[in-house]
Amino acid sequence: MKRIKAVIAYDGSGFSGFQVQPNKRTVQAVLIQALGKMHKQTEFKVTASGRTDAKVHALGQVIHFDTWLAIPIARWPIAINSLLPADIRVLTAEEAADDFHARFSAAGKTYRYKWKISNIISPFTRNFCTHLPIKPDVEAMRRAARAFPGTHDFSSFCSANTPVIDKVRTVYQLELEDRGDEIHLVISGSGFLYNMVRIIAGTLLEIGMGIRSPEEAAKIIAAQDRDRAGKTAPPQGLYLEKVDYGS
Amino acid sequence: MKRIKAVIAYDGSGFSGFQVQPNKRTVQAVLIQALGKMHKQTEFKVTASGRTDAKVHALGQVIHFDTWLAIPIARWPIAINSLLPADIRVLTAEEAADDFHARFSAAGKTYRYKWKISNIISPFTRNFCTHLPIKPDVEAMRRAARAFPGTHDFSSFCSANTPVIDKVRTVYQLELEDRGDEIHLVISGSGFLYNMVRIIAGTLLEIGMGIRSPEEAAKIIAAQDRDRAGKTAPPQGLYLEKVDYGS
Repeated sequence: MKRIKAVIAYDGSGFSGFQVQPNKRTVQAVLIQALGKMHKQTEFKVTASGRTDAKVHALGQVIHFDTWLAIPIARWPIAINSLLPADIRVLTAEEAADDFHARFSAAGKTYRYKWKISNIISPFTRNFCTHLPIKPDVEAMRRAARAFPGTHDFSSFCSANTPVIDKVRTVYQLELEDRGDEIHLVISGSGFLYNMVRIIAGTLLEIGMGIRSPEEAAKIIAAQDRDRAGKTAPPQGLYLEKVDYGS
Repeated sequence: MKRIKAVIAYDGSGFSGFQVQPNKRTVQAVLIQALGKMHKQTEFKVTASGRTDAKVHALGQVIHFDTWLAIPIARWPIAINSLLPADIRVLTAEEAADDFHARFSAAGKTYRYKWKISNIISPFTRNFCTHLPIKPDVEAMRRAARAFPGTHDFSSFCSANTPVIDKVRTVYQLELEDRGDEIHLVISGSGFLYNMVRIIAGTLLEIGMGIRSPEEAAKIIAAQDRDRAGKTAPPQGLYLEKVDYGS
């Protein structure tokens, strides 16, 4: 048996999120089907760095699984991709240590949230960003963004119906990229609570729209109360960009 | 009654082309349904500059229709878009002369064909370009492209099963844009035969791959024989970019 670590990308539009659910098309179910076929097992274990929600995309999700197949490591992406639907691809695969774990070994993650400024929602980007009719004040969003890096209790930025008790997380960096007709929020951290990036994005957008002041951001964090933060931003603008595993 | 000219965009991935066909989801059928609803007519006439094939996209397709509705012209895109699915949008609308005709008044059209060079077909671009594992020789393609501008009988670049008799068309310009990991073919002309852009794209690609020499292009045009040209390039890389109506 050996453990394989693989980096995968998926267009989340056609998936009900990562995790297996009865009668739903999920990323995990599609991976289990492809890998199960290769291994002639109907039940096959595939572990990811974490879940993604329905319609959320991944540019660099990481998974691991164990295999007894003697496929040369360079052939793994081609082998799996030949059994996967076109909206999910294995980008790279490598042999990992026996104790490598896609979720527990992760040292940090980077997410990207994309807004596009456009009067009309383009048919080509409708599933790949959140459209805004008016450009928000990116400088105000940047001023507010300064409150996030560091170790905080992020209860204000966590979906209320979550069983997680410890809501302390460390945000390493939070940048806003002004690309003219697109604005990207790029956030990296030790780990993220359920809906955390989307609630941060929604709150920063309200600040950019002048509904709230940039100074409110620090107060919302300090309040540790979901009701104080902004709306959860829609899923189609969110990308899991990268998972880091230290050295 | 007044005549409305509208510019529309659509993601062709989910459509069986432009023209109405029984039991198929087509762009025209979706437009007829939306405009028919507004006009309380189940049969409504919508005319385009020309058809597009299944999976072919449009950035600037032009349509016309006649209406008795007293909607201010600036409100027309919003009104129609509210009844259209998200993979098609009306970008602009204007009142046109009574004798304006989306097809017969057209003076020229511009198409774009997109190739992407990538070992793995990205889930995000799979429906929006044609993927190539190896970059073709763009300079060879450019040398071959010089044979096309001008007025020629383009029988070699027309699908064999077409009822059109006169296959003389004028190509105004044919450019190849080298964008690093993307190559775009941009062609404008008086009009195009069935599959003409896709057969030109397929032939130029074979030249770029070294399967044929750039000098062959002029000979293929002169032969007036479909069998002499290359394969028809796949539809998902093709975009109807613009329709021109002179001054």
